[in-house]
Amino acid sequence: MIAIGLFLWLFPWENDYNTTVDVYVRRNMEVMNQHLEKINETMELFEKYRHAVAVMQYDLETICPREGMADQGETIAFLSNECFKLIKDEEFEAHVKAAYEEMDETWNEFDRALVKDMYRSIIKSSKITPEMNLEFARIMQKAFASWSRAKEASDFKMFEEDLKAVAEKDRKTSALQSEVPELKQDTPYDYRLDDYEQGITTADLDRIFGACKERMIPLLKEICESKKEIRTDFLSRKVTEEQQKALAYKVLSYMDYDLNRGAMTTSEHPFTMELNRDDVRITTHYYNDAFASSLYSVIHEGGHGLFELNAPRENWEHHISNKTMGQHESVSRFYENIIGRSRAFSDVVYDMVKECMPHVVEDVTKEEFFEALNTVTPSLIRTEADEFTYTFHVIIRYEIEKEIMNNNLDISEVPELWKKKYKEYLGVEPSTDKEGCLQDMHWTNGFGYFPAYALGNMYNAMYYNRMKEEIDIEKEIRSGSLKNINAWMKEHVWKKADRQTPKEWILEITGRELTPDDFLDYIEKKFRGIYNL
Amino acid sequence: MIAIGLFLWLFPWENDYNTTVDVYVRRNMEVMNQHLEKINETMELFEKYRHAVAVMQYDLETICPREGMADQGETIAFLSNECFKLIKDEEFEAHVKAAYEEMDETWNEFDRALVKDMYRSIIKSSKITPEMNLEFARIMQKAFASWSRAKEASDFKMFEEDLKAVAEKDRKTSALQSEVPELKQDTPYDYRLDDYEQGITTADLDRIFGACKERMIPLLKEICESKKEIRTDFLSRKVTEEQQKALAYKVLSYMDYDLNRGAMTTSEHPFTMELNRDDVRITTHYYNDAFASSLYSVIHEGGHGLFELNAPRENWEHHISNKTMGQHESVSRFYENIIGRSRAFSDVVYDMVKECMPHVVEDVTKEEFFEALNTVTPSLIRTEADEFTYTFHVIIRYEIEKEIMNNNLDISEVPELWKKKYKEYLGVEPSTDKEGCLQDMHWTNGFGYFPAYALGNMYNAMYYNRMKEEIDIEKEIRSGSLKNINAWMKEHVWKKADRQTPKEWILEITGRELTPDDFLDYIEKKFRGIYNL
Repeated sequence: MIAIGLFLWLFPWENDYNTTVDVYVRRNMEVMNQHLEKINETMELFEKYRHAVAVMQYDLETICPREGMADQGETIAFLSNECFKLIKDEEFEAHVKAAYEEMDETWNEFDRALVKDMYRSIIKSSKITPEMNLEFARIMQKAFASWSRAKEASDFKMFEEDLKAVAEKDRKTSALQSEVPELKQDTPYDYRLDDYEQGITTADLDRIFGACKERMIPLLKEICESKKEIRTDFLSRKVTEEQQKALAYKVLSYMDYDLNRGAMTTSEHPFTMELNRDDVRITTHYYNDAFASSLYSVIHEGGHGLFELNAPRENWEHHISNKTMGQHESVSRFYENIIGRSRAFSDVVYDMVKECMPHVVEDVTKEEFFEALNTVTPSLIRTEADEFTYTFHVIIRYEIEKEIMNNNLDISEVPELWKKKYKEYLGVEPSTDKEGCLQDMHWTNGFGYFPAYALGNMYNAMYYNRMKEEIDIEKEIRSGSLKNINAWMKEHVWKKADRQTPKEWILEITGRELTPDDFLDYIEKKFRGIYNL
Repeated sequence: MIAIGLFLWLFPWENDYNTTVDVYVRRNMEVMNQHLEKINETMELFEKYRHAVAVMQYDLETICPREGMADQGETIAFLSNECFKLIKDEEFEAHVKAAYEEMDETWNEFDRALVKDMYRSIIKSSKITPEMNLEFARIMQKAFASWSRAKEASDFKMFEEDLKAVAEKDRKTSALQSEVPELKQDTPYDYRLDDYEQGITTADLDRIFGACKERMIPLLKEICESKKEIRTDFLSRKVTEEQQKALAYKVLSYMDYDLNRGAMTTSEHPFTMELNRDDVRITTHYYNDAFASSLYSVIHEGGHGLFELNAPRENWEHHISNKTMGQHESVSRFYENIIGRSRAFSDVVYDMVKECMPHVVEDVTKEEFFEALNTVTPSLIRTEADEFTYTFHVIIRYEIEKEIMNNNLDISEVPELWKKKYKEYLGVEPSTDKEGCLQDMHWTNGFGYFPAYALGNMYNAMYYNRMKEEIDIEKEIRSGSLKNINAWMKEHVWKKADRQTPKEWILEITGRELTPDDFLDYIEKKFRGIYNL
């Protein structure tokens, strides 16, 4: 999980901080628009508070002792509110609106991107009063608290009322935004989707996920009925934390993750956090009977981290940091799955495992190792799902969210609908709410986040095909470092992500419109191969 | 090292944060003085910023990656300045002065302590303009940078000019404070001492350290000439980080350190940091051939931590946190030395070592273990000194600081004077500046801090004698937990430390005036015993 997402409502923009020196240099080079100058001043201040909040949030999730959490939460809320006040300031809004009116082709593209983002955020929240904002925050906090208790007790009823309140909050937000002509969308859910993945609509997702279901449901049936036997016993061999840590650092070094500009620590749920321009940290967890869990967390979070660490320096200088969740997940899942679970990478990892924890693979072939990392097993928990079945977990959440937002599905019906869809798509059925609709915390914030996880797979399969035209990927993977792959990513995938909508971005990278075909072809080829179908 | 000290110039008061609820409760219970109400409002805000700074500073010293440090330093400086602005605000100062005038016996003692502290800080800085303050900060930053380089190159010349600037800053501050009649002291150095240890003067220290030299120099000679042979080979046996960590947690649990209100992590130099009322963290370091180094760091820092964690809750509610460095060191060194290197404790630790790293003591008796922990060896580095010789390291620094501040000793003469004094008191002489006067970073901030380390020993030997009258200390140590010893400390030592000057405090605890006799008797008895003299 990337922690940035959880901040979204507090930080509509993930912006950055400019040293005074940088600013002076720029000021001497161009006569800056007076509104832009004011915007930059505010953003520099904003960035200081954002930095403090990020460090405190990171600390809260990694080290802060239990009894200190409440106070730390209060200080984070206070500093977040200082951020919020800066950009909800009327004078600031006036400068943004004026800059938006005045900007033209003579402005550099970074300044334009900043002003466009700011303007978009302002009009998005234009109908939301500070009182509503506070009320919404309370609804989310209350929902989070009752979700935690409900999950522990595995009782959806304990969460039902608060989830209803979250749905009402989201529908109300959509209704308020629909009053602004520039924001017009087709359905209430589309307003929410646009928060996380600008320009992506229910129409897009219906088409994409429809295609996925059409091709993947029958294929999953074939896989489940296949005679292929995959050995996985060695994945649960006992390993120490030291061994796993050694493996993790080896993989990060191979990924060319610069630990002078980042760190790896532990937390219950792995996440990536961009604390500052030269400080992007990832976390992992260590289980003594599941080395691959930590290993693939590190690769996934390492992907998120590389994306942030390799953003153009100009973005920082112009306070632009605006990657969507789908763009982010495309990168993390590119490293985790497309690269990370490829045959070439699995061979590389096999050798590393042999060095760090030799007993794990002492009687295992490279072929067996590769297959074990790619076993398809329909299961109940999204975060533990394999590459193939993962998409279904997302589709199910998407379909339920859409029902709630657009057709007012009665919240009490969520657990039954959840079970029905799991049975239908994956052939498994949760026997408890904890394994079912209570497993993820995302809905305590609202709806619209989940589709980004699956969209990431659509994007990355498309740019993977593009990359293949220019690079011998297998050779690069076997070369001992992902440097050249990262360099391609930096030039094509990472460079403009902050300044383009996902649709513009994928079109520029690949020359083609967003499509699920690349992903579905990739999946079909890979798993037909493994399962001899 | 306790990190609080390094913040002193930024945070004249280590204050705390009050939940809104607490405040309302108090407001309903008493009609609060309007000035006090304003002071509390500011302090609540102050505390939020202080908390953020503490978390960021902790992070900087434990996890922050190298390339992220400069930005993190800037954000810390920004937030520190927000703190500083709050209490340098003219309106705030007016409220403090008015409250100081109006307060009387009807006010509760906590409110009075707060107002007294605030008032003291305000008059102390009354002649220092914001420009001077900024200039002083620059001098310290510059000195720190050149000290780091000079230490690395082991060349005092590289630090000389900047140390001269620090001395001038300190003398200027003293001169400005001498213009305020309420602050009147006898010598320039006394103003600085008063910053760290309110009420302690050069006259006190000359008397105390004079007595130490008189009794300890001849005793050290006897020890060095004694025939006693102490075995220490096993102290450098190889141990893993895991083993040391297990031992550290065992010791913390035995010390009754509540890890739900704190944490233990690693850093280059061990320190304790009070991040918030329920969040006091310690750090340690692990060397694979010196388990006792980490072990005694943990006990020392654990002592600092217990002191903070067991402060009266009312202190927090009234924004009082005003322990002196000497009080703090008295507690940490009480746990580290008086308790920690006693025969009873050494037996307890022996058993823990046997469990966590059995090979270390497999051929070692408890007697040998105890003696090894108490070997006296004159050496060059303060932080590695034994319990006996430690005091000399402090006395030497004190005597040099006093010369600089009061008699304008030429800074270029510091290395020679340093060597001369080491030779005279300890019989050893540094061959390089790195092992000599460049070893500590403290002088990059200014003078007056060091005496607190030795004063701590005077205080703790006095309250140790008092404790013995009420508690069977050896029995408590052997009982498996320091709970009862902590309870006595809480009632007698920790309760009023924030509201009394060290002299008032030690008088109330022991019924006697500050004296070095208890420390010297304790030292003499202990080491004559060990060395059969």
